[in-house]
Amino acid sequence: MRYEEFTIEGRNAVIEAFRSGKPIDKLFIQDGVQDGPIQTIKREAKKHDTMIKFVSKERLDQISGTGKHQGVIAYAAAYEYAEVEDILEAARAKGEPPFIFLLDNIEDPHNLGAIIRTANLAGAHGVIIPKNRAAGLTAVVAKTSAGALNYTPVARVTNLGKTMEELKKEGLWFVCADMDGTTMYQLDLKGPIGLVIGNEGEGVGRLVKEKCDLTASIPMKGDIDSLNASVAAGVLAYEIVRQRML
Amino acid sequence: MRYEEFTIEGRNAVIEAFRSGKPIDKLFIQDGVQDGPIQTIKREAKKHDTMIKFVSKERLDQISGTGKHQGVIAYAAAYEYAEVEDILEAARAKGEPPFIFLLDNIEDPHNLGAIIRTANLAGAHGVIIPKNRAAGLTAVVAKTSAGALNYTPVARVTNLGKTMEELKKEGLWFVCADMDGTTMYQLDLKGPIGLVIGNEGEGVGRLVKEKCDLTASIPMKGDIDSLNASVAAGVLAYEIVRQRML
Repeated sequence: MRYEEFTIEGRNAVIEAFRSGKPIDKLFIQDGVQDGPIQTIKREAKKHDTMIKFVSKERLDQISGTGKHQGVIAYAAAYEYAEVEDILEAARAKGEPPFIFLLDNIEDPHNLGAIIRTANLAGAHGVIIPKNRAAGLTAVVAKTSAGALNYTPVARVTNLGKTMEELKKEGLWFVCADMDGTTMYQLDLKGPIGLVIGNEGEGVGRLVKEKCDLTASIPMKGDIDSLNASVAAGVLAYEIVRQRML
Repeated sequence: MRYEEFTIEGRNAVIEAFRSGKPIDKLFIQDGVQDGPIQTIKREAKKHDTMIKFVSKERLDQISGTGKHQGVIAYAAAYEYAEVEDILEAARAKGEPPFIFLLDNIEDPHNLGAIIRTANLAGAHGVIIPKNRAAGLTAVVAKTSAGALNYTPVARVTNLGKTMEELKKEGLWFVCADMDGTTMYQLDLKGPIGLVIGNEGEGVGRLVKEKCDLTASIPMKGDIDSLNASVAAGVLAYEIVRQRML
């Protein structure tokens, strides 16, 4: 279980939590309190789709651990990042060749959540994301992952290329999604594999691409440029599933 | 071309256009005007991700067709719905067996846009949606379709089941996405086909399901319930693409 709940008390702390993208599961506000900071918190809650429960001051005093709730208490969730080793261990525990998603700078939290959801259902053992400008595990990601975040380990690494080098020593090889690649149906995608999905606008970065053993493309039969990143990840992941089932 | 641009002038007309979900491509506001309705328009523009261009009164007078712009002019886009017959004609024109997406009440405009995008790239000849509570062709759909709405015809029908009956007379048969179905890799998905994708929460409705010839399932190897609707549509569509390429 990588999910832990904790409480945040007081106006500034709760506003800060929202603004930093912390996943807030529940919000308690004292009945009848209407001042500026509380209005700000209500707006943030609306923006983040957080349910508000209006309760009496007595109820807040009961919930409060500090006694200094200032009329507002939030229940936040913390999703702990896993280590890459945890992902390999998950594969070992299942007696399966590792199947890992590597996301080279997915920026949209909806896409990140949908991809973690797909990773779980395609039977991948984990997801690796970079630390820099990519989306992290925020409330939106938790929500769009539809619960997958509670099962599928997500590791965050400083340098995706370096992590790939280390995983190659563990026997993994990497297939990178790119329009210039070989049609995915013609590639052998069985065995221990890392599926590398690129950024929404720019695709897989040059340095990461150079570390890939194969480049797979999805056949494009239409008029526009590319699939949505989470759809592309799903289509490629399920080609891997299909080949593994043969 | 199913895309046409037109201008909307005046405060109430522009506010109405935003609120009704009309796709607004560009918004011109007179420099320095700050009153209530203009603030409302700015908020709506922000909410809908519409670019605002602040211009002089003289410039607005130039653009205006009515001379009654009240400090604001919007460029809106209209996406005309196609007829089912247009979709069949598109297949005929390409000399291909028809491949149509039928969406049984997709409610999230992001999903609808991503599915139209997928339909275009998977080489489908069109998308059919029902008239009732499903999402229509709003600005969000246009945006998330990444331009596909300009190429892939979308028809809206009153009764999806009745339309399926009519399409069966044209030689189409229907495969419905459902978890209880046969693994998609074991089905023959070549020939003239309609791919039926269900609602995000409830799946394909009973009446529509009864009209399907086949039920296809995506193998689920994880802990959670289901893929995101647009990811599931992509995975199934590309299994059809794969079989058609054989």
